[in-house]
Amino acid sequence: MNYNTPISLQNFNVSNGFWKDRMELIRKNVLLYQWDILNDRVEDAAPSYCMRNFRIAAMMNQKRKELGDAFEEPKYSFKPGDEWPKDPDNLEETFYGCVFQDSDFSKWIEAVAFSLANHPDEELERVADEAIDIVCAAQLENGYLDSHYIIKGMDGSFKNLKDHHELYCFGHLLEGAVAYYQATGKEKLLNAAIRFADHVNEHFGTEEGKCNGYPGHEVAEMALVKLYEVTGNEKYLNLSRYFIDQRGQKPYYWDNESEYFGFEWKEQEHYEYYQAHRPVRQQEEAVGHSVRATYLYSGMADVARLTDDEELKTACRKLWNSTVREKTYITGAIGGTKEGEAFSFPFDLPNDLAYAETCAAIGLVFFARRMLQMEVKAEYADVMERALYNCVLSGMDLEGKRFFYVNPLEVLPEACHKDRRKEHVLPVRPKWFGCACCPPNLARLISSVPSYAYAENEDTLFMHLHMAGTVVKKVGDKEAVFAVKTDMPENGNVEIAYTAQEPAAMKLAVRIPGWCENWGVSGTEAFHCTEKDGYYYIEGVFTENDKICFVFEMKPCFYQADSRVREDIGKVALMKGPVVYCAEERDNTDSLHLYRVMPQENAEETEVIINGEAFPALKLKAAKMVADNAQRTLYTKYRNVQYEEAVLTMIPYYAWANRGENEMMVWFAES
Amino acid sequence: MNYNTPISLQNFNVSNGFWKDRMELIRKNVLLYQWDILNDRVEDAAPSYCMRNFRIAAMMNQKRKELGDAFEEPKYSFKPGDEWPKDPDNLEETFYGCVFQDSDFSKWIEAVAFSLANHPDEELERVADEAIDIVCAAQLENGYLDSHYIIKGMDGSFKNLKDHHELYCFGHLLEGAVAYYQATGKEKLLNAAIRFADHVNEHFGTEEGKCNGYPGHEVAEMALVKLYEVTGNEKYLNLSRYFIDQRGQKPYYWDNESEYFGFEWKEQEHYEYYQAHRPVRQQEEAVGHSVRATYLYSGMADVARLTDDEELKTACRKLWNSTVREKTYITGAIGGTKEGEAFSFPFDLPNDLAYAETCAAIGLVFFARRMLQMEVKAEYADVMERALYNCVLSGMDLEGKRFFYVNPLEVLPEACHKDRRKEHVLPVRPKWFGCACCPPNLARLISSVPSYAYAENEDTLFMHLHMAGTVVKKVGDKEAVFAVKTDMPENGNVEIAYTAQEPAAMKLAVRIPGWCENWGVSGTEAFHCTEKDGYYYIEGVFTENDKICFVFEMKPCFYQADSRVREDIGKVALMKGPVVYCAEERDNTDSLHLYRVMPQENAEETEVIINGEAFPALKLKAAKMVADNAQRTLYTKYRNVQYEEAVLTMIPYYAWANRGENEMMVWFAES
Repeated sequence: MNYNTPISLQNFNVSNGFWKDRMELIRKNVLLYQWDILNDRVEDAAPSYCMRNFRIAAMMNQKRKELGDAFEEPKYSFKPGDEWPKDPDNLEETFYGCVFQDSDFSKWIEAVAFSLANHPDEELERVADEAIDIVCAAQLENGYLDSHYIIKGMDGSFKNLKDHHELYCFGHLLEGAVAYYQATGKEKLLNAAIRFADHVNEHFGTEEGKCNGYPGHEVAEMALVKLYEVTGNEKYLNLSRYFIDQRGQKPYYWDNESEYFGFEWKEQEHYEYYQAHRPVRQQEEAVGHSVRATYLYSGMADVARLTDDEELKTACRKLWNSTVREKTYITGAIGGTKEGEAFSFPFDLPNDLAYAETCAAIGLVFFARRMLQMEVKAEYADVMERALYNCVLSGMDLEGKRFFYVNPLEVLPEACHKDRRKEHVLPVRPKWFGCACCPPNLARLISSVPSYAYAENEDTLFMHLHMAGTVVKKVGDKEAVFAVKTDMPENGNVEIAYTAQEPAAMKLAVRIPGWCENWGVSGTEAFHCTEKDGYYYIEGVFTENDKICFVFEMKPCFYQADSRVREDIGKVALMKGPVVYCAEERDNTDSLHLYRVMPQENAEETEVIINGEAFPALKLKAAKMVADNAQRTLYTKYRNVQYEEAVLTMIPYYAWANRGENEMMVWFAES
Repeated sequence: MNYNTPISLQNFNVSNGFWKDRMELIRKNVLLYQWDILNDRVEDAAPSYCMRNFRIAAMMNQKRKELGDAFEEPKYSFKPGDEWPKDPDNLEETFYGCVFQDSDFSKWIEAVAFSLANHPDEELERVADEAIDIVCAAQLENGYLDSHYIIKGMDGSFKNLKDHHELYCFGHLLEGAVAYYQATGKEKLLNAAIRFADHVNEHFGTEEGKCNGYPGHEVAEMALVKLYEVTGNEKYLNLSRYFIDQRGQKPYYWDNESEYFGFEWKEQEHYEYYQAHRPVRQQEEAVGHSVRATYLYSGMADVARLTDDEELKTACRKLWNSTVREKTYITGAIGGTKEGEAFSFPFDLPNDLAYAETCAAIGLVFFARRMLQMEVKAEYADVMERALYNCVLSGMDLEGKRFFYVNPLEVLPEACHKDRRKEHVLPVRPKWFGCACCPPNLARLISSVPSYAYAENEDTLFMHLHMAGTVVKKVGDKEAVFAVKTDMPENGNVEIAYTAQEPAAMKLAVRIPGWCENWGVSGTEAFHCTEKDGYYYIEGVFTENDKICFVFEMKPCFYQADSRVREDIGKVALMKGPVVYCAEERDNTDSLHLYRVMPQENAEETEVIINGEAFPALKLKAAKMVADNAQRTLYTKYRNVQYEEAVLTMIPYYAWANRGENEMMVWFAES
């Protein structure tokens, strides 16, 4: 099989440029800040309770061991009112926060691991080891490790798979453990994860006497694949496949789950929300909670690839097409509606009501990379790049200290404050959330971006994204080394120099970006070159001082949406390369809806200073409607609308909302 | 004081034309059908339980009388689960349906009364008398008459003024009773209403020992004014003024109400919903539930006029301006959001998410008429006419058997079915609703349209709307009689003939419609004519065969919205006279959003057959975007969009959704 895998983070040394800056931001500003958050030490931020819960669970565990049979197991009870502690200093109290609070640690430790792999840091590693000690102390003898049930009563465990995120926390723990092991070689957390996975594996399955349920919130599927890949133990791959194929089988497992709680699920008919309305192989439309969906699809793509399951691959392709051809914003955001934080119906992509959750764009990046592992086609990388440069980065402010859940494409602050339909849309990023899935998710993704940019198989190095740095690839028993220089996304020049002393016979596959119409390459005379599925393959013997230069023409360019997207009809959006631009009131005037742009005119490149830093900006000739409103009536007879010449200054979408509340728009009517 | 009052329905004999047809529809198809509905005799329609509740209350009353002190009063309990009977045939059971179910009878009897005043009908009157007997049998000795509390326990009475609609039902009962007395001269229901009003009057007020609360859902304010006008008893006017001025005073009365129920109102901060956030004289913006708002404003305008209260008049004018200059759709609909069935913030008027409740447009008609009574200015009548011809009539199908709550300006059926944000928007009218405020409200308004068209004071007859028929006005001890011929809204010709044998010295005031730019009048040579505030005043001695002819030019005409209405930017809507036109998929193609219209071009008048009946229609030259969608991506580089020539056929908005589910749009992008 000719699949590919992401390069190990240790084999890439990011040199400079766009992603280096962001990875450094995560390393310097975000990781220790988030550690403070997880320990409830940041004023004015919603408390996390995450590490507090692990500490309480560990204390109870200690008592368990000391008292033996005399320990009185708590009787499980779940009252939503229990979410906030009465006495925050009293560690004897119960579990606080959302049921999935443990996962904040797991995503954080994963981010830390990625960062350590890129950039060793003793102090950070010490903090991480300390955190791992606390978490592992909470683990039960039988391997179980979810603080919610350990604290509140194990009799409730695995009783509400649908909504209580137990297998979600399990999955994230596995991912964190695998990453930390890969980065540091330390096995403590990995062993804890293996013990937990073995426990889960004992419990679930179609065999007689086992529980034939599956996760309400997916992630364990892809996490188990990672555990399989690092341990080589096929039972984890099999458990993942079991979770995937059991999903949505009739009779629905969750129907009976509700009996334990003494009531029927009200949402029985809403299993679409969970992608559990039918078996996954029969699903053709991306539906329901969009983060869950992409996590499931990612796991499906992993299992399809590793088991060479053509039927499952076909299902993945259909769900990919449904997602990106009918339900993705130009920013790579998904989730058109706040109702269920979900996909809306095909082509329903409202700009101002969008849910467009940061985590869902991250999930789309996961899904895209796994489709790329299955088959190297530029369309997957195009979407991955679109999401990374736009919706994903929009989730965080420029200092890495404030975060968006929701990344709309049009904001009128007055509407955010006064219109309950838009109460999910915030005009500025808050510091943290009670349900804080997005911030650590961002940290772990950005820290691991090189593993999305570069992948390899036995004889080929794939460059999916053009990212500056030094990449090392094993070719037989030799090491091929490439030094990549690029200022992407500032311009489209990419220089790839072979820097190892020993030559290597191999292939280099460089993606030709979907946004690029004209491109050229030089330095390939000695190689056999072919183009396939949007990739340029350069095959031959690379020797020191070989230098291959790509020039991908990158001009500001207007885009239009499929005409079935009603909200964008007659409108255009501006991009430069992979970066979507937006206009903010701050650089223009208010009432951005009065502007019309002229897509035939060229945009002028300039800069805008935001928080003391220069950002690329584009200036456009535009027309602004002269507001000539009657004083007495809302509606007047049509008269030729007057426009005045105007200039519209647009900034990268990822940099919006860093200067206080103001209007923002991506799509503009064309003049 | 030079105020005016609506003409008595007995003094107008509708001859033919637009409104005659609709009044006849109500008389023939709606009233007895609604009587069946109120008695739960219509299959497939949500049960009303209205008359069933009165019957049970009457039975309990009978027992009360028979048993005397031995009667065991029920202990009040309110469980929302009680809404539907377990055994629908067992009349011994409890109250069913919404707490305000009584009001359906009251609105129905009012509609019946208006119809009888226009068109005596023995059979209908017999049914009405029978209904009144049932209702009056439920009245307690002390005058109290609300079946909900009579059945469920009087100890709960007046304990939840905020939400349990007790004073709302009270108000509607007064309105029904006054109308029935005015139409038939029969006093039974009026006397019941007076006894109830006296009971309420004893209970409420600022005096020591009285309850200083006020209605959660307004209507009693204007109802008490009607009772005052028919009885001449000032205590009812005073009670109305008390309710108005007590509203929103601090400390908030409702805050303490919640104690009775053992919990705090969650919505304490949401008194805006009830227009009770501050005293009404300090309110400047129309906020909250839009039906409640217009009912309150109507009562305020009544009291301001009758007490010549300048401060209250000023408050009314401010609220009027806020409503119509910032928060009214071109169809006369109000209520931009389903969240609280409420006004959204100024200029937030989304076409597809609109709430635009039928009852709210009806409320706007009430408010407009009362502003007209306060001061004769055409702007009030313009809004009244806009609401009547468009949003109000849209509330009912062409047969009078199906009803809309919500009257959007743009409908995509797929969105209604799949987008929970639009679950309130229905693409076709249902037969009835569990909460059925709109259908009987429509019946009573349409039956009484002449009293909105014509008004009078001592020496002047006002023609606010141009409606065909014969109108009689007392002038001193003589009767002036005018025969009005018009095909409005088909064309703008209005002929007013004086037909009484005896001459009369008086004034005729005819509104010059706001939509009319060119108009002429003939036959006024012998009169002194002046124009003021949009009315043409014709003063002199009218003698038999005087004939005054107005020609109000009425051409199809495009309108644009105030540029602060973001949802309508770059768009136009088509009207002819007061009638808004819309396009339906049925007469065109699907994907109505692809059409662009050319507001410089003239529309061609034609007809469309709907349910076998010819309706005026307008054909427009239009351009339809050629949908040239890429197969692989949602977003493509901008290329000149291609349009093909197309014709757009538009029908009156009031006739939409009579041919099954299909797309509909009012606002079109201009080419």
